[in-house]
Amino acid sequence: MHEAPDWIAVDWGTSQLRAFAMSGERVLAEASSDEGMGRLAPDAFEPALLRLIEPWLGSGVTPVIACGMVGARQGWAEAPYRTVPCAPVAPGALMPVAARDPRLNVSILPGLCQADPADVMRGEETQIAGFLSLHPEFEGTLILPGTHSKHVRIAGGEVTGFATHMTGELFATLAQHTVLRHSVAELDGTAPEAFAEGLRMGRAGEALSRLFGLRAEALLSGLSPEEARARLSGLLIGAELAQLPASGAAVAIIGAGALAARYREALALLGIAAAVHDGAELVRRGLIAARAAEEEEAT
Amino acid sequence: MHEAPDWIAVDWGTSQLRAFAMSGERVLAEASSDEGMGRLAPDAFEPALLRLIEPWLGSGVTPVIACGMVGARQGWAEAPYRTVPCAPVAPGALMPVAARDPRLNVSILPGLCQADPADVMRGEETQIAGFLSLHPEFEGTLILPGTHSKHVRIAGGEVTGFATHMTGELFATLAQHTVLRHSVAELDGTAPEAFAEGLRMGRAGEALSRLFGLRAEALLSGLSPEEARARLSGLLIGAELAQLPASGAAVAIIGAGALAARYREALALLGIAAAVHDGAELVRRGLIAARAAEEEEAT
Repeated sequence: MHEAPDWIAVDWGTSQLRAFAMSGERVLAEASSDEGMGRLAPDAFEPALLRLIEPWLGSGVTPVIACGMVGARQGWAEAPYRTVPCAPVAPGALMPVAARDPRLNVSILPGLCQADPADVMRGEETQIAGFLSLHPEFEGTLILPGTHSKHVRIAGGEVTGFATHMTGELFATLAQHTVLRHSVAELDGTAPEAFAEGLRMGRAGEALSRLFGLRAEALLSGLSPEEARARLSGLLIGAELAQLPASGAAVAIIGAGALAARYREALALLGIAAAVHDGAELVRRGLIAARAAEEEEAT
Repeated sequence: MHEAPDWIAVDWGTSQLRAFAMSGERVLAEASSDEGMGRLAPDAFEPALLRLIEPWLGSGVTPVIACGMVGARQGWAEAPYRTVPCAPVAPGALMPVAARDPRLNVSILPGLCQADPADVMRGEETQIAGFLSLHPEFEGTLILPGTHSKHVRIAGGEVTGFATHMTGELFATLAQHTVLRHSVAELDGTAPEAFAEGLRMGRAGEALSRLFGLRAEALLSGLSPEEARARLSGLLIGAELAQLPASGAAVAIIGAGALAARYREALALLGIAAAVHDGAELVRRGLIAARAAEEEEAT
């Protein structure tokens, strides 16, 4: 990298740390490690960051803007949630964090919370900000699939409400830690009919009451492990998507890979066309939007 | 024990082995160990049984009737399921098992299965047989709470259908293996309002969509770990009990202790009065009924 970055964007989740050397909106270099929030004590964050970005630092002070679980209570420093309804990023929202290294000027982008029903997010707000910087007129629901899938209602450029579904974590824990582990394959196979059937059942409110059937059908009627895995996925995603408003409003997916594709497929089976927007790209866009808001605040 | 048993009743589950030296319907002695099906290879069952019952054996042949997971595919010998609708025990249903010790004449009481929706039980059929030997006129639904809670429809002295709910296993795995472990107490506290609230939500089909709220309310509004545990229990039991037929038919609980009491409380909150019948006593009653059916078959 010949050009010195004028700032550094950091996506710091529970299991991964990703940093981008930036010149304005341009990525000059990127680096990542597995030093996520989940394995770091509070005083270990700055060294973990320096291990990754030290080659990029000049003699002056470089601003670093970080989002994600780094701002959780168990993170580097707790960044208090902002309460919806609000824009996903806004001037004055960044929380400064004390760093020992004089070359660093670190701030954390806070997550969002909702009072009733109680809910929280950290990290997704940055993807949402990135999405809205590209699609400022979007109104409807954003779905961010994952361990904790988020349904986020957007209107007037703001997050007006959201709901978290533990779909990914439920799937993993049911497949690994319950009697279903004997019947569910460890890897995805190809069983689109089993997925669609699970989806219908889950959407009809039968997700929990159909779980043991995966085991019983494996014992009695030869349901294959791949079919059981696809049905389980369908049951849980169907239960989640049953919570979408029936308004016919727009739906878009923020994510990537097989999981985003599965949600798109599920929505299509429910008659909802939803485009997939790459989450990694949107995090960078969101951090750029946060920096722009900060500069607006400063002027 | 001065009197020699004329037969031995055995309740052999996944985690426990219990044996009763019987004289007709009378218990002469009992013994138990933790050598459940879950930790025994097929050739380890007979030695495990002998360790428990050898002091009771005379020089002749003693009939042994066993129920439970001992008859599973991973058990001593697989006892094929009988298909509902059928009586929980019936003449000719016992499956003989080859034993090496000439003093033993072992047979296994088979479980029940249902074709559509696919479902299976092993062990509960014996409790149900015990219940029906005491309450032959009962018509309605029996609930057997546990790791895998069973709802069993009874009419005309037969099991006409049943459904398994993974409520207990779901509760344990959510409380131990997901993000909820940070918010849910390890032991039950006293939080009847949180339980009742969870029950209402679960019955309204909100069990899955309310799970993450336990974490969020703990972070945002100080939901206590004991309240979170009671709410989680209510959510899952509420979702289970939402599956009861709305017919107003009789409901009875087979179980014991705190769990049976919680189900009785939940049913009472839903306006259903249900008596609790001790499951351990009913297993013995069911094994007695199985032996009586066998003797009827033999004559």
